[in-house]
Amino acid sequence: MEQEKNKFEHIEYLLTEKRYIEVQRLLADLNEVDIAEFLEEAPAQNAILMFRMLPKTMAAEVFTLLPKDQQTRFISAATDKELVPILDEIFLDDMVDIVEEMPANVVKKILKNTDRESRVLINQLLKYPKDSAGSLMTTEYVGLKKGMTVEQSLAYIKKVGLKSETIYTCYVTDENRILEGFISLKDLVLADSTEKIDRLFNKEFICVNTHDDQEKVAHTFKKYGFLALPVVDNETRLIGIITVDDIMDVMEQEATEDFQRMAAMQPNDETYLQTSIFKLAKHRIGWLLLLMVSESFTGTIIEQYTHLLASMTILTAFIPMLMDTGGNSGSQSSTLIIRGLATGEIDLKDWRKVFWKEFRIALMVGTALGSVSFVKSVFLGRKNPLIALSVGVTLVVTVMIAKITGGLLPIAAKKLKLDPAIMAGPLITTVVDTVSLIVYFKIATFFCSSLF
Amino acid sequence: MEQEKNKFEHIEYLLTEKRYIEVQRLLADLNEVDIAEFLEEAPAQNAILMFRMLPKTMAAEVFTLLPKDQQTRFISAATDKELVPILDEIFLDDMVDIVEEMPANVVKKILKNTDRESRVLINQLLKYPKDSAGSLMTTEYVGLKKGMTVEQSLAYIKKVGLKSETIYTCYVTDENRILEGFISLKDLVLADSTEKIDRLFNKEFICVNTHDDQEKVAHTFKKYGFLALPVVDNETRLIGIITVDDIMDVMEQEATEDFQRMAAMQPNDETYLQTSIFKLAKHRIGWLLLLMVSESFTGTIIEQYTHLLASMTILTAFIPMLMDTGGNSGSQSSTLIIRGLATGEIDLKDWRKVFWKEFRIALMVGTALGSVSFVKSVFLGRKNPLIALSVGVTLVVTVMIAKITGGLLPIAAKKLKLDPAIMAGPLITTVVDTVSLIVYFKIATFFCSSLF
Repeated sequence: MEQEKNKFEHIEYLLTEKRYIEVQRLLADLNEVDIAEFLEEAPAQNAILMFRMLPKTMAAEVFTLLPKDQQTRFISAATDKELVPILDEIFLDDMVDIVEEMPANVVKKILKNTDRESRVLINQLLKYPKDSAGSLMTTEYVGLKKGMTVEQSLAYIKKVGLKSETIYTCYVTDENRILEGFISLKDLVLADSTEKIDRLFNKEFICVNTHDDQEKVAHTFKKYGFLALPVVDNETRLIGIITVDDIMDVMEQEATEDFQRMAAMQPNDETYLQTSIFKLAKHRIGWLLLLMVSESFTGTIIEQYTHLLASMTILTAFIPMLMDTGGNSGSQSSTLIIRGLATGEIDLKDWRKVFWKEFRIALMVGTALGSVSFVKSVFLGRKNPLIALSVGVTLVVTVMIAKITGGLLPIAAKKLKLDPAIMAGPLITTVVDTVSLIVYFKIATFFCSSLF
Repeated sequence: MEQEKNKFEHIEYLLTEKRYIEVQRLLADLNEVDIAEFLEEAPAQNAILMFRMLPKTMAAEVFTLLPKDQQTRFISAATDKELVPILDEIFLDDMVDIVEEMPANVVKKILKNTDRESRVLINQLLKYPKDSAGSLMTTEYVGLKKGMTVEQSLAYIKKVGLKSETIYTCYVTDENRILEGFISLKDLVLADSTEKIDRLFNKEFICVNTHDDQEKVAHTFKKYGFLALPVVDNETRLIGIITVDDIMDVMEQEATEDFQRMAAMQPNDETYLQTSIFKLAKHRIGWLLLLMVSESFTGTIIEQYTHLLASMTILTAFIPMLMDTGGNSGSQSSTLIIRGLATGEIDLKDWRKVFWKEFRIALMVGTALGSVSFVKSVFLGRKNPLIALSVGVTLVVTVMIAKITGGLLPIAAKKLKLDPAIMAGPLITTVVDTVSLIVYFKIATFFCSSLF
């Protein structure tokens, strides 16, 4: 990487010296991802200049990697003549992503410079719902017909290979485009060239439907370790394929969405630095308001016990610690369960196991925390032992309630077809806070009545 | 998937009828991942029976997918004669994972039935630190030598292909095994067969070092969208390769670790249901204790203001809501920043942008929450307006402190080479709780002194 950095510094120097031929030669040797990163940070004029110097195949890939606003600028700056060969090299699935996000006048310029066939396909792909397998797939795959020989297949791959997103998995269909199976390029290359593919291809295949959610698609990829998956319609006709590189982005995006939901935000698929503060604020305020209003139940409970708190103000001093520890205990459990549900390790039917596990863990952890708190309050804090006992016992009960609630609410959410990720720290804390306050006051009244 | 389920039910039926030939034929047609899942849940005797029926290549793959305890049982049950062909088919990287986790007597049985060459390689691979590129890689790659023609290369791939983890990316080295570049099978298949590979292969390559952390490796895969990456030593000699399917597991594992750290747990790479309750409790108790003790500062602060709370017990009623809202606001910000740092979107140098963004968002969100709280307290709660004002202003200040702390602490952690994920909700809440209590009491004293 250090090496790459030096090369780009050298390119910058060559640009100021207007030694463009050398720049062009250097650029052609670099990786498209690195070039895109470099263009993103270069001054606008230099960026366009360098972009124009790229060989057409590279320009297409670099283009798909650039941020939206830079893509818009490049298209506006390019002549139609420049645009045609670049657009021609872009894979259809990337093209759809671009068209979806560009302003109308730019989309018009793009579609004008795309051949008719691609235009029809783009419009078809645009119809699939966002986050569906259909919106992720590309139609540029290698489709083989039953009855072909290995040699014919390889010759066909040679012909269509350059315009295919992957040639490593080829799909075999019958005359009605019904998917019958697949064969890897590995098997073709390793096989005898005169053999028919009918005996070689895998008839047991895993596929996804155009309307399947991208999360399901990502699961299937991870489970089976495939490089590509076929996408079929309701009649199992082969419509397109999804490749593993696109799925890695989906996996990251799905994890990010879970992180956001679990921190009480509406998920946002733009990056933090590129999102406006108004949008960020909007995604945060809803949950904060809801939780704030729910949390005011705790105020009502406290108001009911003002007589207790007035006669023993010291009880107030433990409230934040009790609520915080309860919240943290609940978050730990809910996080593990939400993650387990997301990766597919935990299932609805496991709720008994989760309950029993969390019950025993909570008993251990709660007792340990309660004991430490009791000893600390009596010996270091010099508190009345009855008060310290009330706090200790409340801790045990609170941790138990928190962990069991944290363990079961995500499963309940999934059962109700809600996203388990909303049952995370913030919501669990609000629920547990209310319950633990009541427990605290009841226990304190019971233990400390002699002190009034 | 439904279809698969029916097949397995049919297999169960055939097993009870002892129609083993049919079972064998059905199994051979299924996907290894599904078979492993089925064996995992089958009764022990049936599982071993079916495992023995599998063709050797499938048995090897199914075996690597089974949980540890079942692998141990299968190896103990197998004869040496059965074991040799299966072990022979397992890729070296999977072999290392198995050997690392098995009890000593099982490892002895495995190594006894492995050929000498593999044994030496396994021992070498075992020396790389856990979570390093070296521990992830396999040495079974296709290595081409400079000077070969396309035809020679394809013939060589045909020869070694079956024992290679991937043949889709082939690596070109000089006579001293120094990595010079790579060429995809796609390029070889699409090229003229008499051409020398020297003109075709890519001389600009991305590689990782054997000692690089797996997180870095996963980033590189995601950034460049490769199917495989070469692993080199300090002299850039080619040592092995890592394939994309292994990296998907790493990505999931790294995200899971972040989820766990962010919920104040020590990360654990075993799955929830398979981890013992003692281990789970051990991983949770440390942070809970630390946070509980830190949180007791809030008690000290409250004790200093007992005179205030005694004369105005109503102030107590707002404490949980204030602390909770502060904690939630801080968690939102820290989650976005931690995730941004993990995916590489946010960098240390962005701290000013983060500060300025969070400052403005916090001002908007804080003012909104403060106003709602004020109006609600005065009109619905019928509280004294001066008290409602104290609470409202405290909310604004608390949200601002929480969001700025939440935004900057993860960056500070990264700067100090700590894991940013520890600066998440739980720790931020503890910090913010203490600060916001002081703010609350100061503001309340200021606004409400006339009410005493």
